[in-house]
Amino acid sequence: MQSVIRPLIQKNNTKIILIVLDGVGGLPVNGVTELERANKPNLDKLAQMSACGLHLPVGYGLTPGSGPGHLGLFGYDPIEFQIGRGVLEALGLGIELKKTDIAARCNYATMKNGFITDRRAGRIATEKSKKLTEMLQKEIPSIGNAKVILAPGKEHRFAAILRFPEQLKPDAAAISDTDPQKEGLQPLNPVPLSENAASISKTVERLIQRAQDVLKDEEKANFILMRGFSCMPAIPTFAEAFGLKSLAIAVYPMYRGLARLIEMEAPAIDGNVADEIDFLKKRYNEYDFFFLHVKKVDSYGEDGNFEGKAAEIEAFDKLLPLVLELNPDVLIITGDHSTPALLKSHSWHPVPVLLYSPYVLGRTSSAFTERECLKGELGIFPTYNLLPLALANSLRLKKFGA
Amino acid sequence: MQSVIRPLIQKNNTKIILIVLDGVGGLPVNGVTELERANKPNLDKLAQMSACGLHLPVGYGLTPGSGPGHLGLFGYDPIEFQIGRGVLEALGLGIELKKTDIAARCNYATMKNGFITDRRAGRIATEKSKKLTEMLQKEIPSIGNAKVILAPGKEHRFAAILRFPEQLKPDAAAISDTDPQKEGLQPLNPVPLSENAASISKTVERLIQRAQDVLKDEEKANFILMRGFSCMPAIPTFAEAFGLKSLAIAVYPMYRGLARLIEMEAPAIDGNVADEIDFLKKRYNEYDFFFLHVKKVDSYGEDGNFEGKAAEIEAFDKLLPLVLELNPDVLIITGDHSTPALLKSHSWHPVPVLLYSPYVLGRTSSAFTERECLKGELGIFPTYNLLPLALANSLRLKKFGA
Repeated sequence: MQSVIRPLIQKNNTKIILIVLDGVGGLPVNGVTELERANKPNLDKLAQMSACGLHLPVGYGLTPGSGPGHLGLFGYDPIEFQIGRGVLEALGLGIELKKTDIAARCNYATMKNGFITDRRAGRIATEKSKKLTEMLQKEIPSIGNAKVILAPGKEHRFAAILRFPEQLKPDAAAISDTDPQKEGLQPLNPVPLSENAASISKTVERLIQRAQDVLKDEEKANFILMRGFSCMPAIPTFAEAFGLKSLAIAVYPMYRGLARLIEMEAPAIDGNVADEIDFLKKRYNEYDFFFLHVKKVDSYGEDGNFEGKAAEIEAFDKLLPLVLELNPDVLIITGDHSTPALLKSHSWHPVPVLLYSPYVLGRTSSAFTERECLKGELGIFPTYNLLPLALANSLRLKKFGA
Repeated sequence: MQSVIRPLIQKNNTKIILIVLDGVGGLPVNGVTELERANKPNLDKLAQMSACGLHLPVGYGLTPGSGPGHLGLFGYDPIEFQIGRGVLEALGLGIELKKTDIAARCNYATMKNGFITDRRAGRIATEKSKKLTEMLQKEIPSIGNAKVILAPGKEHRFAAILRFPEQLKPDAAAISDTDPQKEGLQPLNPVPLSENAASISKTVERLIQRAQDVLKDEEKANFILMRGFSCMPAIPTFAEAFGLKSLAIAVYPMYRGLARLIEMEAPAIDGNVADEIDFLKKRYNEYDFFFLHVKKVDSYGEDGNFEGKAAEIEAFDKLLPLVLELNPDVLIITGDHSTPALLKSHSWHPVPVLLYSPYVLGRTSSAFTERECLKGELGIFPTYNLLPLALANSLRLKKFGA
């Protein structure tokens, strides 16, 4: 679809704001969903004037991770553009990846006589893991011509990046996992699955040997397991694809990292949603497109905290007038996926969306809820169509054909 | 889509029941459809608690046969996986096909001086046709290394299967029809349309000559015409595609045959819908997935019997509590296509569907009818998405991407 859209793009001075209430879609508990439970007069009023609908991030029955969820919102088909596990892990830990990087998810593990006896090194404390990772980083700054970058995660987890001096071939990261997935087995060798991965898998082998040497006196964390080798996906930048100068406003590193994948500007910021909106206001004149990420709605959903999630939606509702004051040409409010408190996890359910612009039908939906959005003019549609709708509603797309 | 789903499958102990009311969708006569006419309190109550919608078996405006209709319900794109006419005919006549078989639809015909004067041999009586087929079968048990299997159908129709000793190449059945489609013409030769069909078309030629010889004293049915040469499609099994151990419960051979194409277990059973539900209960502990087929709804539709079709829906409604007693994790009730009594045939109209599980919105549709299902949370969607939805609602699919 991007190839159809690209030649139709025209620039103008309109402003588009996309607000992502992470995991906003829900399911009924005692008959009402989180959105139905929340008292949110501003969102409901806006929904009445907006084009409403539900978007489907990956496909019927498919539950998206945060990566595919956001790529869809940014206008990319998440099945066509898949992001490797290692890359996502690194983005989540705040590492800025380059096109010459190969990233992997790593575990500390316990090895005895050549066999893995604990794949998670007894789930060592995060603090301990952090110290070990700092030690590894200090002892192994590079392997051959590759710079080594390590980032500690929670408990036994960390990310490893090999930064090479030159751009890599797309299949250079095709290397098999070393994690045997079961205890009592030997760790696996990193096997190259493409010609371009051959020399890189050797570098990985040496990294593992060096790490083993550095960790040899550790009681539990005396070995490392690596999986999800991946490099930055070959993906058009957001500016190339849609002709928009864009700013990502997100407190969590993962979402800034996803935005940076497509070269959105994504400065590190801190604070709460009010701070994010402040930041939006300050930078409002400099960009065409703003992605503003609200994390906590999802966090409460993941915790199974129905009331907490509803309260977070209410809290956002109180701040919404600050966004409306900016009078954007197009305002979209939605989620990257559903996270029903009932399921305590992301889910496959389509996500309510409202799109406000001067060029909508409106008056189809009385509130911003799953059931009311079902009545809306956008229907149920693949998520990656939302961005073209934003372009159209900001009059940034020329006619297709004569 | 199956390739996206396969790596996400996880197994658990949930039970999924798919009930197919064959041809259930309809059109208004005196303002109401068959589903709207039927008094069916149990179905309506279930619809109120379910995810409702309409599924589109092949595409907008396309009327499915029973083959594509069911393949879609089983999670296969019926445009990608097409089933040959000969194979469907053989399945419908209750023949268990093997991967080494080539099947064809056959007609008895009348030939005079080398020209076909009646393509249907005067539509000879079914009883007569059966006797002729038995005679042919006795006289021609094999041709070369191919076993010949003949199955009588209605009137002038029968099916012929050539069973070879070895697995065939996918294009081995690419042989042209011998039916000239018009009377007064000569029968056509079976021409091989691929290299792998060359020797097989010779076997077909010899079968036709042998049959002509056996039938030479018949007044009307003195020749056979063959068309729709086909072999079993290359298709992943249901267990491979979706990780489900499955049981098909169907009284008519065609539907068991379709289920066997994807290696569902499909024992021959007899009786009415109550007997089918009894059978479901007896085997409930042994499988993950149950396909239960209700034929008569379609039969009345095909006859143009509006009231009969509505009455069949009512009869099923009375039995529905017996299914609900099993308390399945996911229950889907729908049809494989619409068969409006108004049209006396299958039609292109999307088919109402309800999906009941603990993880639906519900309260969108007040009854199980075409118009009420339109208000539902599933929207109008391609049929092959129903199976992934069943997997999702039984928590059998992991997250896509991280």
